[in-house]
Amino acid sequence: MCPYRLVLEHVTSRWGVLVLIELAERPHRFSELRRAIGRVSEKMLTQTLQTLERDGLVHRDAKPVIPPRVDYSLTDLGREAAEQVLALALWTERRMDAVEKARQAYDEARS
Amino acid sequence: MCPYRLVLEHVTSRWGVLVLIELAERPHRFSELRRAIGRVSEKMLTQTLQTLERDGLVHRDAKPVIPPRVDYSLTDLGREAAEQVLALALWTERRMDAVEKARQAYDEARS
Repeated sequence: MCPYRLVLEHVTSRWGVLVLIELAERPHRFSELRRAIGRVSEKMLTQTLQTLERDGLVHRDAKPVIPPRVDYSLTDLGREAAEQVLALALWTERRMDAVEKARQAYDEARS
Repeated sequence: MCPYRLVLEHVTSRWGVLVLIELAERPHRFSELRRAIGRVSEKMLTQTLQTLERDGLVHRDAKPVIPPRVDYSLTDLGREAAEQVLALALWTERRMDAVEKARQAYDEARS
């Protein structure tokens, strides 16, 4: 397996995609991110953020305050990745009608 | 959840990405595709192809010959999706050095 496949898997992972899209808008705190994405467990989101941080795509900023405050934002590299992912997401949104039509035809041919 | 998220999940799924990339080159028979992708079980590849076919991205052509021959190719819609995914894959390949550097820094800071 080419090593870049693993990064591709990170940025295209179920939660990776959504984290990049949310952070492309603006930095988020952990709880905000979790609310924005929905359906993601605390553990999975933590894991996703750690993977993206290690890949150099996400910056984790832990403020030394009480109560603790942690902000997540995109690095320059992460911003580039997010642009690619956003282009894909926008394409998907734009072509949703064609996908829905294809699904109907597929299901009708099999019912 | 927006309905398009599900399509986004299909085209960015672990095997969906790789199927789109392989088929962007040329049509493949099932066994060729499996060899090209590697590490994928027959069941997972079948499932991935069915999902992409239902979404209207992949065309399945079963030739009435003996032994049976099934070719998979991209539809026009699939070609568009593959272009987006390829742009993302190429970006990943191009920026792999920066990712490797980030990983080293991350691991060193924690060792």
